[in-house]
Amino acid sequence: MYKGFAEPREEPVMSEQVPETRPKPAVAMKPTAGLNPNLLGYIGIDTIIEQMRKKTMRTGFDFNIMVVGQSGLGKSTLVNTLFKSQVSRKSSGWSREEKIPKTVEIKAISHVIEEGGVKMKLTVIDTPGFGDQINNENCWEPIEKFINEQYEKFLKEEVNIARKKRIPDTRVHCCLYFISPTGHSLRPLDLEFMKHLSKVVNIIPVIAKADTMTLEEKTEFKQRVRKELEMNGIEFYPQKEFDEDQEDKSENDKIRDSMPFAVVGSDKEFQVNGKRVLGRRTPWGIIEVENLAHCEFALLRDFVIRTHLQDLKEVTHNIHYETYRAKRLNDNGGLPPVSEDSHESNI
Amino acid sequence: MYKGFAEPREEPVMSEQVPETRPKPAVAMKPTAGLNPNLLGYIGIDTIIEQMRKKTMRTGFDFNIMVVGQSGLGKSTLVNTLFKSQVSRKSSGWSREEKIPKTVEIKAISHVIEEGGVKMKLTVIDTPGFGDQINNENCWEPIEKFINEQYEKFLKEEVNIARKKRIPDTRVHCCLYFISPTGHSLRPLDLEFMKHLSKVVNIIPVIAKADTMTLEEKTEFKQRVRKELEMNGIEFYPQKEFDEDQEDKSENDKIRDSMPFAVVGSDKEFQVNGKRVLGRRTPWGIIEVENLAHCEFALLRDFVIRTHLQDLKEVTHNIHYETYRAKRLNDNGGLPPVSEDSHESNI
Repeated sequence: MYKGFAEPREEPVMSEQVPETRPKPAVAMKPTAGLNPNLLGYIGIDTIIEQMRKKTMRTGFDFNIMVVGQSGLGKSTLVNTLFKSQVSRKSSGWSREEKIPKTVEIKAISHVIEEGGVKMKLTVIDTPGFGDQINNENCWEPIEKFINEQYEKFLKEEVNIARKKRIPDTRVHCCLYFISPTGHSLRPLDLEFMKHLSKVVNIIPVIAKADTMTLEEKTEFKQRVRKELEMNGIEFYPQKEFDEDQEDKSENDKIRDSMPFAVVGSDKEFQVNGKRVLGRRTPWGIIEVENLAHCEFALLRDFVIRTHLQDLKEVTHNIHYETYRAKRLNDNGGLPPVSEDSHESNI
Repeated sequence: MYKGFAEPREEPVMSEQVPETRPKPAVAMKPTAGLNPNLLGYIGIDTIIEQMRKKTMRTGFDFNIMVVGQSGLGKSTLVNTLFKSQVSRKSSGWSREEKIPKTVEIKAISHVIEEGGVKMKLTVIDTPGFGDQINNENCWEPIEKFINEQYEKFLKEEVNIARKKRIPDTRVHCCLYFISPTGHSLRPLDLEFMKHLSKVVNIIPVIAKADTMTLEEKTEFKQRVRKELEMNGIEFYPQKEFDEDQEDKSENDKIRDSMPFAVVGSDKEFQVNGKRVLGRRTPWGIIEVENLAHCEFALLRDFVIRTHLQDLKEVTHNIHYETYRAKRLNDNGGLPPVSEDSHESNI
C-alpha cells in the first residue's frame, strides 16, 4: 500500500446510472455545468482482482470429486493422472488385493495439493462395489443419499445461529461417471444412474480405457452415447440451461459436442523423443496420455481443472444445493431443519 | 481451453494429509512401492485465480460507501475525488442552493463505474442534516436504523425458500466519518456517533479539509484523535481483533498508526510542472490532493479502494452482518424472520 501510486492508466468509464436501492429517492442526476464528469486518472477498481487473488492464496479452496463406475475401468489411475499425485484410495499398497465389497461403499480421502502458491484441499470420493453385484438394482441409491447428506450438513451449518466464517464444504462438486468402452451402447445401469443423479450433482461422463478403441470406433461410440443420453433426457455437465450468456453457450457447446471424452490414465513415465511423458507401453507403441492424437485425457483435464473448476463449484452451490435446500424447507413447512440430526432419517 | 497445453512448470507439492470428512474411514495412506508420489508436470490448480477473475469480469461487484459529518466538510467533493467521477448526490446542478434538512435524511445514489474491464456498482449514501441541528441528540439513530435495515433485507433474502442467485447487496461496506479540522479535540457528537456505530459498520474516520492545518498541527491533532478514540474504547476499521494473521496485523498496524488520514478533496484540475493534477489554488500555491507531501488523500484512496475494498466487504458480511443475524435470530427464538415485513417495527 505504501509503495507509491500507480500512474494514471485510462479514463474510468461511468457507463450508466442504475436504479437506486433506497427507500427515499435520491436527487436525480443532471449534467453538471462546468465540471468534467470524469476527473483525470486511475481509480483502482480493477485492483479488486488482485485483492481477491491475495485472499485465495491465503485461504485456499476445497474441491470434491467423486468417481463412479464398475471396478477395473481405471478410476483410481485416472484421478491420479488428473492431479499428478497419488490422491486416490487405491494408491495405498495393499489395495490391489482388496475384495470387491458386497454392497456399494463410499470412501473418501483428502489431500492438500499446492501449486503456484494456491492450496487446494482435494477430496476424492470412491464408490467401490458400484455395478459389481449380480443384481445391481438401486445401487445408485447409497450414492444419492451420500450426496444429499452433504447438502444437509451444509444447510444445517448455514441455518445455525452462530455460523462458522467458512462453512466446511463436503459437497460433491463433480461426479466422473466411467462408461465401459464396449463400442456398443450404454448399459441400462449407466442410464439408470445418470437419470437419477444428473438432477442432484454435476455428472461428467467419460469413456474409460479408450485405448481399446480405434479412432473410428471411438468417434462412432461417442456419437452413439451422446444420442442415447439425449434420447433419455439426461443432461450432463455443463448443462445447457445454466449457460449464462452467449459467450458461455458457445464455449460450452464446443465442449458438449466433444463429450464424453475418451480417456486413458497412467501413473507410469516413459521417455519419448527425449521427453518424459505419462503413458502406457504396449508391444505396438507407447500411448501417451497427454497427447491429443492418442486420447482425450488432456481435454478432460483442461475442462475439469483449468477452465471449469470454479464453475463446477458454483453450479453445485447455486443450482444443486439450492434445489435441495428449497425442497427441504418446503417439506418442512418453510422452517429450517433442526440442528441436532433429528431429520437424518428423512433424507 | 483448446489452445494446447501448458508446459510442465513446477512439481506440485502434496503437503499434508488432512483428516477426511467421511462417515466410513478411508484406507490409510502408505508409501506406495515403485510409484513416484508426484507424477511429472503441471496440474493447473493455480488457474482457479484466472477462473475467478473471469467470473468477476463478467458479474462485476457492489460497493456501498456512506459519508457522515457536518455540512461544509467536503464530503461530496471527497467521494468525487476518490472515484474520479461525479458520483455524489451533490454533483447535480441545483444542490448548492439546497437547504439543510431539519432532521437527518439518508440519500443514496448509484452509478456503474468500469475500469480495466471490471464493473463496480457504486452506491454513495449521504446523510444530510447530521450534526447540523441546534440539538443533535440521537442524530446517529436514523443512520443506525438504515444500516440495520439493509442487514434485515439481506437476511430476509437469505432465508427465503426460493433465493436469488446473487442477493442484492445494499449493506453499507464502509462509513467515512468526517472530523472537523479544529486542531483541538473530537467533539462529543463525534464520539457519540462512533461509539454507537463502530459496532455495526466499518467506520473509517478522516480529518476533513486538512489544508487548514500546518504539518505540526496535523501531526499533533492526529495523535490526539487516536488517543481520544482509544480512551473511549472506539475501534475503527481495520479493527485489530479481525486481523487474520501476523502479516495482516503488521500491514494493518502501519495503517492504524497513520489514521485518521488528513485529507483534501478536489474536482478541479491544474497544470503543475506540465502535469495535470487535481488540486486547490490559493494565493500561496496549489495544494495537490494526490501529492503525499501536501495531504494524505492518496493514502486514503489506496487503503479504501486498492488494498482493502474486498476486505471491507468481507468484514461487513462475516462480522457485522453475522452479528446482526445472530442477534435477530436469537431475539426471534432461533427462527428466521418472516418474509412479509412484519418485523420492520422491531428493528
